[in-house]
Amino acid sequence: MSNKPGGVDIPWLLPDSVEELLPPAASELEALRRTALEISNRWGYALIMPPTIEYLESLLSGAAHDLDLQTFKLTDQLSGRMMGVRADITPQAARIDAHQLRQEGPVRLCYTGTVLRTRPDEPAGSRNPLQMGAELYGHAGVESDIEVISLMAEVLYASGIESLHLDLGHVGIFRALARDAGLEADDEARLWDALQRKATADIQALMDTLQVDAVHRDRLSALATLSGGSETMDEARRVLAGAPSSVMEALDALSTIAQSLQRWSPTLTLHFDLGELRGYRYHTGVVFAAYTPGESLELARGGRYDDIGAVFGRARPATGFSTDLKALLKAIGPTKGSQSFVEGAIGAPWSANEALRAAIRAHRQAGDVVVWLLPGHEHAAAAMGCDRRLVEDDSGQWRVEPL
Amino acid sequence: MSNKPGGVDIPWLLPDSVEELLPPAASELEALRRTALEISNRWGYALIMPPTIEYLESLLSGAAHDLDLQTFKLTDQLSGRMMGVRADITPQAARIDAHQLRQEGPVRLCYTGTVLRTRPDEPAGSRNPLQMGAELYGHAGVESDIEVISLMAEVLYASGIESLHLDLGHVGIFRALARDAGLEADDEARLWDALQRKATADIQALMDTLQVDAVHRDRLSALATLSGGSETMDEARRVLAGAPSSVMEALDALSTIAQSLQRWSPTLTLHFDLGELRGYRYHTGVVFAAYTPGESLELARGGRYDDIGAVFGRARPATGFSTDLKALLKAIGPTKGSQSFVEGAIGAPWSANEALRAAIRAHRQAGDVVVWLLPGHEHAAAAMGCDRRLVEDDSGQWRVEPL
Repeated sequence: MSNKPGGVDIPWLLPDSVEELLPPAASELEALRRTALEISNRWGYALIMPPTIEYLESLLSGAAHDLDLQTFKLTDQLSGRMMGVRADITPQAARIDAHQLRQEGPVRLCYTGTVLRTRPDEPAGSRNPLQMGAELYGHAGVESDIEVISLMAEVLYASGIESLHLDLGHVGIFRALARDAGLEADDEARLWDALQRKATADIQALMDTLQVDAVHRDRLSALATLSGGSETMDEARRVLAGAPSSVMEALDALSTIAQSLQRWSPTLTLHFDLGELRGYRYHTGVVFAAYTPGESLELARGGRYDDIGAVFGRARPATGFSTDLKALLKAIGPTKGSQSFVEGAIGAPWSANEALRAAIRAHRQAGDVVVWLLPGHEHAAAAMGCDRRLVEDDSGQWRVEPL
Repeated sequence: MSNKPGGVDIPWLLPDSVEELLPPAASELEALRRTALEISNRWGYALIMPPTIEYLESLLSGAAHDLDLQTFKLTDQLSGRMMGVRADITPQAARIDAHQLRQEGPVRLCYTGTVLRTRPDEPAGSRNPLQMGAELYGHAGVESDIEVISLMAEVLYASGIESLHLDLGHVGIFRALARDAGLEADDEARLWDALQRKATADIQALMDTLQVDAVHRDRLSALATLSGGSETMDEARRVLAGAPSSVMEALDALSTIAQSLQRWSPTLTLHFDLGELRGYRYHTGVVFAAYTPGESLELARGGRYDDIGAVFGRARPATGFSTDLKALLKAIGPTKGSQSFVEGAIGAPWSANEALRAAIRAHRQAGDVVVWLLPGHEHAAAAMGCDRRLVEDDSGQWRVEPL
């Protein structure tokens, strides 16, 4: 245990991309957390608290390879098996819906908790986000997608986000086109990767190699450029005309969702993007991401991930969103900017006086912060956040006076 | 990824001693969490959120060896250094006080978060407790010990614990006696261990080997039996008469604390125990543990741990308590026993009706839970926790009716 200044092992340094919250930011995050859970609860989403560690296979079931790379691995000393620290809570919620709750109809769940990642998603990202999310199981229609997007928007607006942009996409469109073009799973994955990078030359080279015919090639290439406002959907219908019916159904679903959102959340700015699908680890249908101007990182994301529960015993339709409340707090910016840890507290002298004790109890019950001015620190009340103090008057009553 | 029933790798099984909370228990735990933090806040304790992972040396600085054994180790892929998943939050709070906040006067901090342990503390214990605690830095007197014990009692009573027993001890008494007897650190540790096991024969054999003289031997042996009500303190003064002054000062501190607690928390049952000091990992002075009848596991514990911050740049007096909110919830027992995930919700048909949307918004803003009855599930309202529904009357108004 060394303590050399400037050395690599200074014991108070946190690992890169690992943050902690001090006063008053921690209280602001706590307020955000409560707001998000309370709204979710009023929409009928029941709180669950899945564990921070699970057996690795439970955490990674049905998820993409990058979740594996992001998951810290631990040996369970009790069983000798591999465990993981969760890098995402959504698959845990799916396990709970499929195996623990086993309901027939729709199930709505919400959660919040720390997830850990071996590396940050983005250079400015965090390795210990405070994930909050809500998931809706058991309903396959666009109505449940509309519901979770609306809930997400309400949570973000209530958090203090003033301007909200929503990217809408659908991972089923690319998948259906790739399958229709006869691509094998490996080739599909390589093309997907090139599309995410919007690497037009790579896309063309890859399709040359794979000998994709002109019709399918045009449709697949078009995805890289099918992004923008509502005109994007018209363009998509034109370019993708003749594609398999599931592609047209996906476009219809997107249009229905967009119309409903425009009607009920008119302040939401909608943006379609049929090619950009990075970071969707287990999704199968409609996907979305929320942004606010001036913040390059997304505020929240989500989408449909039907059948992820199959490995836990039951395939169920599923849709939901999640957000990192710490990133959200950063996007909102400091709300108070205070330097003191406690604000507006009442200082009380340390004394066995019966009436003083009663006065302190009453003030705390009424919601005031009352701080004992411990012996030797009677004059440090202001430093402890006090702007008032309890003073005994001639009649033995304790009254609150300005400091 | 296999899914064999009865196999060892059933993907929905949780590791031993790792629990998750489903509805409605998760909401009950959330309520407990809020109560504990709100009370702490009203006593002037500012919320901090230290990270779940840190470099190993930060987590273990100043702590005992058993914390090392309980800490899961991870390799930081960004730096190649060893990180640990915290098994205790108190040392993190000490780091924050010593290095991040750097205040001169008293600093009060509270926190809650999951900690992980490689093995449970007790056979019935948890490997993923939800630790909540409060710490007071910068004041060395008994007043701060009295404050944190009183705060702990208020948190436990407010959680629904009706009967509270408090064990009081002082790790400084054994240490001063061992030093006075001329014991080396290793021998002191072996004797400490035997004392914890109340292994009288081992204690005597060890003191034979170490050739402890009769006077010191009597004092050290006496610790194993110095436990009980207020008479214990009189007995201790008699048996330990002539011991170093720090022993007498420790006894005086315990008496002062006990008198104050008896006066201000008369419902608290006090019990002294000068020998049983298990599980105190970094404590230096007064220690305490809270129990409730019928629960063998302690509800909360704490004590004084001066100077733990030295390795982080500043030695400060420190005292505090912590509790596992999950264990606390278990001790309180189920408060509702409900089987449904959401209760007393209002069901609303899925419709674009403008007045319906407004009615839903108003009900949610008023604190009601309103659940969309998604297409195809209109008749499953009761299963979704609804006992009322929104119905349109002849005038186009939406009214709440019993289901």
